[in-house]
Amino acid sequence: MKHIAIFGFGIVGGGLPDVIESCREGIKNLIDDEINVKYILDLRDFPDSPYGDRVVHDIKPIIEDPEIEVVAETMGGAHPAFEFSVAAMEHGISVVTSNKEVVATYGDKLLETARKNGVNYLFEASVGGGIPCLRPFATSLSQEKIVSVSGILNGTTNFILSKMKFEGREFADVLAEAQALGYAERDPSADVDGIDAMRKIMILTALSTGKLVDKADVYAETIRNITPADIDAAARMGASIKLIGTYKACEDGISVYVCPQIVGASNALSAVNDVYNAISVTCDITGDVMFYGRGAGRYPTAGAVLADIVAILSGAADAEKQHVFEKAEGSVVPFGKVPFNYYIRVRCDSCADTCETLTHLFDSVKKLEGSPEGVCEYVCGKMGLDELNSIRESIGNVESVIRILE
Amino acid sequence: MKHIAIFGFGIVGGGLPDVIESCREGIKNLIDDEINVKYILDLRDFPDSPYGDRVVHDIKPIIEDPEIEVVAETMGGAHPAFEFSVAAMEHGISVVTSNKEVVATYGDKLLETARKNGVNYLFEASVGGGIPCLRPFATSLSQEKIVSVSGILNGTTNFILSKMKFEGREFADVLAEAQALGYAERDPSADVDGIDAMRKIMILTALSTGKLVDKADVYAETIRNITPADIDAAARMGASIKLIGTYKACEDGISVYVCPQIVGASNALSAVNDVYNAISVTCDITGDVMFYGRGAGRYPTAGAVLADIVAILSGAADAEKQHVFEKAEGSVVPFGKVPFNYYIRVRCDSCADTCETLTHLFDSVKKLEGSPEGVCEYVCGKMGLDELNSIRESIGNVESVIRILE
Repeated sequence: MKHIAIFGFGIVGGGLPDVIESCREGIKNLIDDEINVKYILDLRDFPDSPYGDRVVHDIKPIIEDPEIEVVAETMGGAHPAFEFSVAAMEHGISVVTSNKEVVATYGDKLLETARKNGVNYLFEASVGGGIPCLRPFATSLSQEKIVSVSGILNGTTNFILSKMKFEGREFADVLAEAQALGYAERDPSADVDGIDAMRKIMILTALSTGKLVDKADVYAETIRNITPADIDAAARMGASIKLIGTYKACEDGISVYVCPQIVGASNALSAVNDVYNAISVTCDITGDVMFYGRGAGRYPTAGAVLADIVAILSGAADAEKQHVFEKAEGSVVPFGKVPFNYYIRVRCDSCADTCETLTHLFDSVKKLEGSPEGVCEYVCGKMGLDELNSIRESIGNVESVIRILE
Repeated sequence: MKHIAIFGFGIVGGGLPDVIESCREGIKNLIDDEINVKYILDLRDFPDSPYGDRVVHDIKPIIEDPEIEVVAETMGGAHPAFEFSVAAMEHGISVVTSNKEVVATYGDKLLETARKNGVNYLFEASVGGGIPCLRPFATSLSQEKIVSVSGILNGTTNFILSKMKFEGREFADVLAEAQALGYAERDPSADVDGIDAMRKIMILTALSTGKLVDKADVYAETIRNITPADIDAAARMGASIKLIGTYKACEDGISVYVCPQIVGASNALSAVNDVYNAISVTCDITGDVMFYGRGAGRYPTAGAVLADIVAILSGAADAEKQHVFEKAEGSVVPFGKVPFNYYIRVRCDSCADTCETLTHLFDSVKKLEGSPEGVCEYVCGKMGLDELNSIRESIGNVESVIRILE
């Protein structure tokens, strides 16, 4: 019998015992043993849960119990998840987590603690829910150079943008529906302002480069300003608007950012709709590979937590690549300098003038066909945000600006 | 220094030394050692290759060399790849392969030989080229039940069907282009008649169920009969025609087949175009996950071969799920009994009569809008092939019939 503990009995942690139960046979085949949830650490009691008798309110008896081999940290938030994980590892207990905030913030220290104590720290469930998208960085793709990653990393915003597209609705209206369905929180900012996606692209960047960048260096743009007029313009371009998290190796360092982008139909990301996530990874040998699936949900995410537990108990994790994250200040190219092609919509009476102004400013300006009455639309490139902002002033009346994914 | 040998110095095997060279640093990080290609087994000599001095024409010195730890079998074809792989494993050498034919035909015996001799037999590169789609069956998804797999498993046919769609061209015309580009062989039947996809779905079925089915039990249908009129009808349904390989657990056993299917836009497979492959896996806990990328190509495939070599040398393969394939006669449901919804195009002067006949035959009949002059089109369901064939006779004048993916 292998004993584990769960820290935080919420959505994911609460689903883990069920998943362990339904995978009993598969687990037995892999580790030739059973997994027992010996403790559940939570501030609350759960008298109605069949696991209620395992609930404790103090970490001490857990980490001092020599039978505990793995802790599943499913608390969320940076604190006290960080301190609790460190304490467990310092007592020789491996930790797996679904907590993107703690990995994105303290991944360097957590991996170092694991290394020093000869234990594992795994976090497959922190990105893409049940999609097995992180382990390839430690296995199949581990000997390659990862050139770039771009992904639809947040299911809530993808649900909202998909509904806006297919049902022609406003952002606020769909957000209210997402909240009613439980896809979005009452305070939706972590999702809609790109914070959740930012944490995930920080983790993917660290897996790709070994560099854990500072969140202050990662540009994140909200989808709150996306309108039906934007969605419609993208549709006329044969494209969709998606919230894309990006890491890219470039000449002067790396660029890491999250923003809504117009994604053409030839890019597989454009067809990823509803709550689905997709992570596209470009490697120097294998080229592009993409991982796709539901990026959230109690059981898929708990399943990914279990896969990490099994990888530790079977010894597989020890044989895989041991990630080292280093804090990397100053390695992210300022977002203002990252060049994009832009969609620009201008409210104008004198379209010809605007068009002439733009033509003077850019090498490449293309007027979009089929614009609604009273606006002109252009595809212009390439420029950074700094340049765009100065142009914005000089042409005036700019109604919308959206980056175009290449 | 870790010594390996390559069996077959063709497209993939010929690319392997280059890939090992470019991944030298990544390999070092993972196994703390270097990989040396000590022998290359081929009937030909390669005097112009920098690896020409390692070429031998006899297997004996290789398998009797105690320094050789892994053989990369990249010969293709069932024989003598099977005998050579067995001989290597019986000498305590692990084998990795990109050879789908030998795995689909003798996977049971090869895995058994590996088990008996305490070595590994891995075949990531046999399906999906460089896409890391098989290892999750041994790692992240290994404790789950795999309910179904459906995939675009052959890049050549996907290239042809994509070109037919986007350029409105005939099958024969695009096939000729694919041959000129080197995407299709002079005898294209292994690709266009679904044989290659059949081997791959047999491997995926075995990974999902442990059952290596007989190829005689797997229905495979050619794409040669797909016409621009079919592609156009699918487009009017908001869909694409794709060659889909399918495994499904069903009440009476499993169904395994390869055939062209109409794939609606809401299915992510519909947006997989050109030479790209995609493998969609439905698991009982994680739900749907999809793996996507280039399904062929020298370096991506050689990269997957290398990933397997590294998994063996690092010990990871030993800690992962050890697959057991068993020959499983009689477990595949006869294809004639597998129910589908069908697109049916009928050449008719008296459309009303046909429509009435169909309405009598099915619970569900929907007439398609926008049919070209002289034909009527219907979406009917559900029925098996046997039933369809008898209906075909009774209505007569059937011009085309294509299954619809649910």
